[in-house]
Amino acid sequence: MDPEEYRRAAYASIDYIVDYYKTIAERQVVSDVEPGYLRQLLPSEMPQEPESWDDIHKDFDSHIVPGLTHWQSPNFLAFFPANVSFPSILGELYSAAFSAPAFNWICSPAITELETIVLDWLAKQMGLPSEFLSDTEGGGVIQGSASEAVVTTMVAARDRYLRDAIASKYSTEEEKEAAIAAARGKLVAFASDQTHSSTQKAALIAGVKFIAIKTYPEDDYALTGAALAKAFKEAEEKGLLPFYLTASLGTTAICAIDKFVEIGEATKDYPHTWKHIDAAYSGAALICPEYQHYLAGVEYFDSCLYVRKRKYLTDALSITPSYLRNAASDSGLVIDYRDWQIPLGRRFRSLKIWFVMRTYGAKGMQEHVRKTLGIGMHFTKLIQAHPDVFSIATPPRFGLTVFQVVPSKPEETVNDVTMKVANRINNEKVIFLTASTVDGKDCIRVVTGSPWATDKAMSEAFQYILRVSEEERQT
Amino acid sequence: MDPEEYRRAAYASIDYIVDYYKTIAERQVVSDVEPGYLRQLLPSEMPQEPESWDDIHKDFDSHIVPGLTHWQSPNFLAFFPANVSFPSILGELYSAAFSAPAFNWICSPAITELETIVLDWLAKQMGLPSEFLSDTEGGGVIQGSASEAVVTTMVAARDRYLRDAIASKYSTEEEKEAAIAAARGKLVAFASDQTHSSTQKAALIAGVKFIAIKTYPEDDYALTGAALAKAFKEAEEKGLLPFYLTASLGTTAICAIDKFVEIGEATKDYPHTWKHIDAAYSGAALICPEYQHYLAGVEYFDSCLYVRKRKYLTDALSITPSYLRNAASDSGLVIDYRDWQIPLGRRFRSLKIWFVMRTYGAKGMQEHVRKTLGIGMHFTKLIQAHPDVFSIATPPRFGLTVFQVVPSKPEETVNDVTMKVANRINNEKVIFLTASTVDGKDCIRVVTGSPWATDKAMSEAFQYILRVSEEERQT
Repeated sequence: MDPEEYRRAAYASIDYIVDYYKTIAERQVVSDVEPGYLRQLLPSEMPQEPESWDDIHKDFDSHIVPGLTHWQSPNFLAFFPANVSFPSILGELYSAAFSAPAFNWICSPAITELETIVLDWLAKQMGLPSEFLSDTEGGGVIQGSASEAVVTTMVAARDRYLRDAIASKYSTEEEKEAAIAAARGKLVAFASDQTHSSTQKAALIAGVKFIAIKTYPEDDYALTGAALAKAFKEAEEKGLLPFYLTASLGTTAICAIDKFVEIGEATKDYPHTWKHIDAAYSGAALICPEYQHYLAGVEYFDSCLYVRKRKYLTDALSITPSYLRNAASDSGLVIDYRDWQIPLGRRFRSLKIWFVMRTYGAKGMQEHVRKTLGIGMHFTKLIQAHPDVFSIATPPRFGLTVFQVVPSKPEETVNDVTMKVANRINNEKVIFLTASTVDGKDCIRVVTGSPWATDKAMSEAFQYILRVSEEERQT
Repeated sequence: MDPEEYRRAAYASIDYIVDYYKTIAERQVVSDVEPGYLRQLLPSEMPQEPESWDDIHKDFDSHIVPGLTHWQSPNFLAFFPANVSFPSILGELYSAAFSAPAFNWICSPAITELETIVLDWLAKQMGLPSEFLSDTEGGGVIQGSASEAVVTTMVAARDRYLRDAIASKYSTEEEKEAAIAAARGKLVAFASDQTHSSTQKAALIAGVKFIAIKTYPEDDYALTGAALAKAFKEAEEKGLLPFYLTASLGTTAICAIDKFVEIGEATKDYPHTWKHIDAAYSGAALICPEYQHYLAGVEYFDSCLYVRKRKYLTDALSITPSYLRNAASDSGLVIDYRDWQIPLGRRFRSLKIWFVMRTYGAKGMQEHVRKTLGIGMHFTKLIQAHPDVFSIATPPRFGLTVFQVVPSKPEETVNDVTMKVANRINNEKVIFLTASTVDGKDCIRVVTGSPWATDKAMSEAFQYILRVSEEERQT
């Protein structure tokens, strides 16, 4: 493909994307394809000869696009939103064109420097304490995913704990090593039973135990200081070592918010235990001042998207073989983000954020948050207006409504009718939502963050849910 | 940004990218910016008001692009190549537009299915044994980076070892758990001293010990079966448990190739030890039949880019909270790649590969490999033609030449003059290369994989290296 062929193909692709977004609301949100559909359509071996872009794009249009789930659709009400905007697509386009596995500053200085700057911008906009900014001992880094953020901090936490809480009690290298080897099998990471599975997965990866602390409806399923203190104590009585805790600002199933101040107070006697805040979805709302009160207590924590002391990351993750050495890194004047993450290479992630921040400005981004959370609230009110059909299961928060369907027949349970409704809706594919279980209650989760979402589309989604629910309650 | 503004901005960005590639050979390969340059140019807080794309793009052109390192430049001779082609940029463009954190099949079925298909295509094209294909117990997955591939297999290896080699000797859950806790501190991963640092980093992440086995010039710095057997034995005598080994097909510093067959034979008595092949750079050459003989012995190994038994990945990494359950996953008919990797979400990675494979066909890709490895060989010959100035340090292989500069003055060492040349070249920024240390010898590494590389550009690079070397030898 020569530059002129590329220009033509790329223009046509841009047109295709514009058409896609202009028609996204009319597309069926979830695909009808069956498992294994694509293998029927594609050859079993790679082509030996070059093919024309027209032929490739024709197959893309007829075989690939019909197998997509449309996450930006206003009818996508499942999981949490993963948004795209036009400037973000431009960021990815340039990031691909200037591809560089920018593990060191010298590998492409702009990639590292822009990341530091936009992350400082964001921290300030969210009202994070200044210790998390890059001109202090802290800083932020864009991990490949939220799960990687948890693994990375857990590895740093484990190494800090083994060094500061275990090895420091001994004097010889031999004693230190034996003590660390013995302690490895006793380390335990904690989180509430509402915490996203990434903490449990991080514990699998780091090779440590994981304990989920039970939460209760009377606390709105928040992790409390008392529950945490009790769990730590019980673990210690069994000889275990609590070295890590994830607290959440907005859990996945129900957007519960753990009691940060209480947790901070309860862990005062555990200076070597790393305390991490997971705010993967709800954290975005902190760009609006009216949500920043949720940050109260963050001063007790070691990390969120940002770390208070970046040395704990680099202590745990830094290795510099000779082929990665260079004058800029040796000077100590630059950040090498490879030492803040699991992979060596990394993409030009900040470009996308920079384009989005500038295209919309803080005001435009706040508007988006307020609009979509408002649409969520609109949906909550529609649910609440029909108490004969629906019951709210957990406090609505950050645009997420978690509800159950009220059975009309005495022989049917709430769980049964709720799951019947959820399964029928997800089979019919008019909208896409998530069924989840909270404390034994089967629930339906509805949330939107799509830039294409509207009150009108949400009202239509509600009318559809209402109709299906009424029908399922009768049959 | 509305769809029509996006269309205009995107067309202009495509034109910018075309111009960039048409002029890439003339651009200075490494930037002149100093650490911290970008902070001087950008405001310290994010903009509150929206800005126009024209303003943003003007800053992009004047502030960001001058801070890039041009990895696709024919003068980029450092590290290993990280290639971009026009169809790969189109793949990234569509991947961004259809963004979906496709952790489950239902999250966007085409994303999962295309990945399985193109990875099977690639495995067949490279001549991998059929046990690594998805219709057996094995399969491939595109990890976010080579490092993640190593971490992921190491975690699977650790869990398999603790279960099959340790816990299986005991009958009660309590005994099993105590044995596992005691074993965790004794686990050790092995690799040669030439292996890429990602294995050592994976050991840090997995929380296990790491031992680098020394290699020798008389073996071309390959890890041999005898050296491995000795290292395993010595570790066991110290009470350590060898659970993982990385062998390399093309190490980073010098493209050494470990002795796979010998290693396979030497580890026959270690059925629970996971054997992984790292072929991160050289593996690409396997699409050409004339390089596939290097795969001899792969039948002894558990993983390369592919795994022989995918169950060990999912056993180690699978967690299914209620909000991730869905009918397709429950049916067992689909792959959920989230259980094959560290992150939960994932990008539409296979689209790029599919576009590239079809645009060039196997023949076009083979042509690229043969062309760039040929350019490497051309450079080797130029170096060899000047034995008075240069000496080859390690056997040239896969287009990589590792050489030293021969001193002309008795008081100067080979290492000194070689580093003087390397530092001056990387300061002058006409070309960009890597200095590295092999077995105490300071060396210069030169390699290209750029689609824009030519024999002519490489000859010019050589003439420049020759001139600098001759000057530095005199001063």
